Amino acid sequence: MRVVLLMKSKSPSQSSRTKSKAAAADSFTLGIDYGTNSVRALIVRCSDGAEAGSCVFNYPSGTQGILLDPRDHNLARQNPADHLLGLEKSVRGALAIAKKQPGFSTGRIAGIGVDTTGSSPLPVDRTNTPLAFDRRFAKNLAAHCWLWKDHTGWREAARITALAAQHRPHFIAKCGNTYSSEWFWSKIWHCLNTAPKVFDAAHSWVEFADWIPSVLAGVRDPAAIVRGVCCAGHKALYADDWGGLPDREFLALLDPKLAALRDRLYEKARDATTPAGALCPEWAERLGGLPAGIPIAIGEMDVHYGAIGSGVREGTLVKVIGTSSCDCAVVSASKNVPDIPGICGIVRGAILPGYHGIEAGQSAVGDIFKWWVETVCRGEGKTHREFAAEVSKQKPGQAGLLALDWNNGNRTILVDQRLTGLLLGQTLHTTRAEIYRALIEATAFGARTIIGRLREYGVPVNRVVCAGGIAEKDPMLMQIYADVTGCTMQVAASSQACALGAAVSAAVLAGAHRDFSAAQKAMTAVKPRQYKPIAANRKIYDKLHALYSRLHDAFGNVNKAADLTDVMKELLSIKESQN
Amino acid sequence: MRVVLLMKSKSPSQSSRTKSKAAAADSFTLGIDYGTNSVRALIVRCSDGAEAGSCVFNYPSGTQGILLDPRDHNLARQNPADHLLGLEKSVRGALAIAKKQPGFSTGRIAGIGVDTTGSSPLPVDRTNTPLAFDRRFAKNLAAHCWLWKDHTGWREAARITALAAQHRPHFIAKCGNTYSSEWFWSKIWHCLNTAPKVFDAAHSWVEFADWIPSVLAGVRDPAAIVRGVCCAGHKALYADDWGGLPDREFLALLDPKLAALRDRLYEKARDATTPAGALCPEWAERLGGLPAGIPIAIGEMDVHYGAIGSGVREGTLVKVIGTSSCDCAVVSASKNVPDIPGICGIVRGAILPGYHGIEAGQSAVGDIFKWWVETVCRGEGKTHREFAAEVSKQKPGQAGLLALDWNNGNRTILVDQRLTGLLLGQTLHTTRAEIYRALIEATAFGARTIIGRLREYGVPVNRVVCAGGIAEKDPMLMQIYADVTGCTMQVAASSQACALGAAVSAAVLAGAHRDFSAAQKAMTAVKPRQYKPIAANRKIYDKLHALYSRLHDAFGNVNKAADLTDVMKELLSIKESQN
Repeated sequence: MRVVLLMKSKSPSQSSRTKSKAAAADSFTLGIDYGTNSVRALIVRCSDGAEAGSCVFNYPSGTQGILLDPRDHNLARQNPADHLLGLEKSVRGALAIAKKQPGFSTGRIAGIGVDTTGSSPLPVDRTNTPLAFDRRFAKNLAAHCWLWKDHTGWREAARITALAAQHRPHFIAKCGNTYSSEWFWSKIWHCLNTAPKVFDAAHSWVEFADWIPSVLAGVRDPAAIVRGVCCAGHKALYADDWGGLPDREFLALLDPKLAALRDRLYEKARDATTPAGALCPEWAERLGGLPAGIPIAIGEMDVHYGAIGSGVREGTLVKVIGTSSCDCAVVSASKNVPDIPGICGIVRGAILPGYHGIEAGQSAVGDIFKWWVETVCRGEGKTHREFAAEVSKQKPGQAGLLALDWNNGNRTILVDQRLTGLLLGQTLHTTRAEIYRALIEATAFGARTIIGRLREYGVPVNRVVCAGGIAEKDPMLMQIYADVTGCTMQVAASSQACALGAAVSAAVLAGAHRDFSAAQKAMTAVKPRQYKPIAANRKIYDKLHALYSRLHDAFGNVNKAADLTDVMKELLSIKESQN
Repeated sequence: MRVVLLMKSKSPSQSSRTKSKAAAADSFTLGIDYGTNSVRALIVRCSDGAEAGSCVFNYPSGTQGILLDPRDHNLARQNPADHLLGLEKSVRGALAIAKKQPGFSTGRIAGIGVDTTGSSPLPVDRTNTPLAFDRRFAKNLAAHCWLWKDHTGWREAARITALAAQHRPHFIAKCGNTYSSEWFWSKIWHCLNTAPKVFDAAHSWVEFADWIPSVLAGVRDPAAIVRGVCCAGHKALYADDWGGLPDREFLALLDPKLAALRDRLYEKARDATTPAGALCPEWAERLGGLPAGIPIAIGEMDVHYGAIGSGVREGTLVKVIGTSSCDCAVVSASKNVPDIPGICGIVRGAILPGYHGIEAGQSAVGDIFKWWVETVCRGEGKTHREFAAEVSKQKPGQAGLLALDWNNGNRTILVDQRLTGLLLGQTLHTTRAEIYRALIEATAFGARTIIGRLREYGVPVNRVVCAGGIAEKDPMLMQIYADVTGCTMQVAASSQACALGAAVSAAVLAGAHRDFSAAQKAMTAVKPRQYKPIAANRKIYDKLHALYSRLHDAFGNVNKAADLTDVMKELLSIKESQN
């Protein structure tokens, strides 16, 4: 258990805007952020977002918290017991620190917000208890939480895509016309196909992001769980427009048992204006004496609350850059947003209430740099900085290199897991640091491609705010992103943007602010250091991006005349035939 | 000075074939091989090619024997004084060893053959003395020997290509329609343009391969030097068909001074049936008491004598694999060989008398592996073996990678220095050893492309013999080459194939064998270990080569519909604009 204390530094203008919030001055909210390997609890002051205490708990089970199967690298599960233990430990840890802060007391906590990874569904029984807690299934990985990056349902995903294309094309039109193996129905159907006993024993399935709030609210009946539209959206193919979840007839095309399951799921999914419930006395006690009855915000995906914690608003793109990137934008619900080809999801209310939430992303960002530094160059953490120092004085294009950022496929805008990496332009003098820079540039070109697609379909992008460790620690990367995209790059002030966003949501519910916009203004900020595009670099990167786009289109099935579309796929087929 | 003793092991069949050569049993010849960094002298027995002694001398001047200019990375010269010192030291060293062998005495040396790098011209005065030996020019790099890899004349090469295309297209039709910056006229014209005092002081210019034999023969007048057609061929645009060197009118298009120089060069170039002269008493003495008057074979390019030393004959392709590869084939002069697009040179008599000599090659082979291991992975010599061991059990295609072997451009069949490397198919799990293997495979695909082009134009390739350290030391590479090309790969028995070929040429002149064919049968051999194509691997490599060819054609200006031809060039232009 690692304990971290971070006092928030706000820019002067930001502080002055919050001076009239006397009513909220003494209240705090709790944001709980479930990541892939750990959970973090963060206590913030509602008036200005100042952090009173924070605590991280690493999940004890499996490998860094993930239950793996050595025979199937697609499998990734989590133990819900870790989630509950982590809830208690992290909140108590954060409280212990906050109690040392002047002006804080446990009784001043006015609300709780939760975000998690997703889509991460888990099977529960009639009492909302995970099947993993049933002695019969304790060792059955299918009874645990199916972590977002579990890809065991890839065959089912392809089948859902095909069936939807044939029978319900509108179902997938809002998620780039491809249903992912990472999502709700792929996983549940795969459970039915491969672990039917678990499927049959499950009374219902709940997204991890909905389940934690339901636990805090003491919900003992799955039908009573308040479900968030954020996870339901394209991931469970939910939309009010077509009456909620997919119709029984369509689900029966998959399997009659899935059609039957529909009745045991939910009719309506909600945005963050609806509370998930009120803190039950049992968990108020377990979390160290929090006030029972305080509101619990609806659960959202980590990056969606991260977007709120980074100050997302119409015209702002929030990029949460980690191993991969998640890009979030919002457009007023009063406007019509068309289907955008290749964009992962467009869901009303998914991020901010009253807005269409738009999600895009790159399948690998930090993971590509890590691969280069650690797997290929056998470097360590500091090697990233050494490489950056070595080439940070180089001018764009000076090494003559160009790369595609597809080492883990392409999530947006090609929606194709079976794309692979490409590096071009190497000579006998090319250095490892130059290739490192080319890989950073490749991810920047990928980012620019996403921004271009959003703008093309009327989603304004006037401001880019980045969150995550890479954005905070790598000025070279941020400058390259500014130069490549032509956008000023800002960095979220909070290092815990996801937990902060959850706390913001709780603060709105608790009445500390009149709405999300006011709460964001008061509680979120960007760092003073901004990265403005340098004209000379932009000019070169415009040329390089044009070349990148030609490779992108030639290998990505956009420019079919190039006749190279199948080269990567054919290589993968050969690879599979030889493995 | 490194001294090496290698006794030749011959296959039994080879030994039995030579049992009747009693007349030649006691004679030896000397092969002298001038490489890029050192010169080697090799003494072999004419009856069976057994090595009696060998000695290597490293050139003392410059950086590893190369005179460089830190302001111009295209410049590479050599000091002719190193060549003369090395001649004496290496021959005396080899003699010292041979004298310990039973049956050898200095008086039994019956001839000398010399090969050098090329095209490496040097300016000489009226007495055949290098201008570098003139006190006025001793420090002027233009007065030294212009090493093969000197590319300072790249602008002149482009101009010659353009002028020839316009006025004398047949001049360059036999060298892939591109005149190289590495060749005779590019260098001499560049000297005229940038060091006119040196040019004006030069009475004549001599190829290094012609100059050493002329020194041994005591030639004091450049007009009396016997010039070899091997270097003259496409490198000096010499052909009997058009009356020898380029006509004065054409040369005057370049510069009137080059037209004037033509008269001070030569009218006729010869193949290896003509001796370069007889050993003069002065050098007989300097080399340790060799018999004066023994014949000196005509000088040839190192790889051409290397081809002879590796047993080249019609139907055999000899690949000398080093930092780059040189591929040599011969076709009987009685047959018509058409111009072959993209093949470096087709010159009658260039390799074996009575045959068209055909030369192709890859701009980088060992250099690419060295780049990957040393520059990128920061490994050492043994790292090659570690990588090889790591992936030698992998099946072809198993890593899903594909590379182009263009890190140093493409010599054959695209004849384009401005092509660069490409690596495709990498994921987040790709290892450095897998990329190493992919780079080996890329060079094998390049080799297959050359073989395909030769066969397409009627040059038979039924057998491939490789020479050089890589072929000797890397069984994984040899097996990959066999599997990719579909040819059984053999390895030349001698590690000193170039010097051996020079010695074979001398042995023919000395009368030890009736002709080259008989001399090769007696004196050259392949190692017992051969590499036969494995059917299952061939099948996969056929598929991979088809993919390689599509990348090759798309980026190499063959498939113009692919619209990617200019990507590498445009990157280089951007690179240059930023440097």
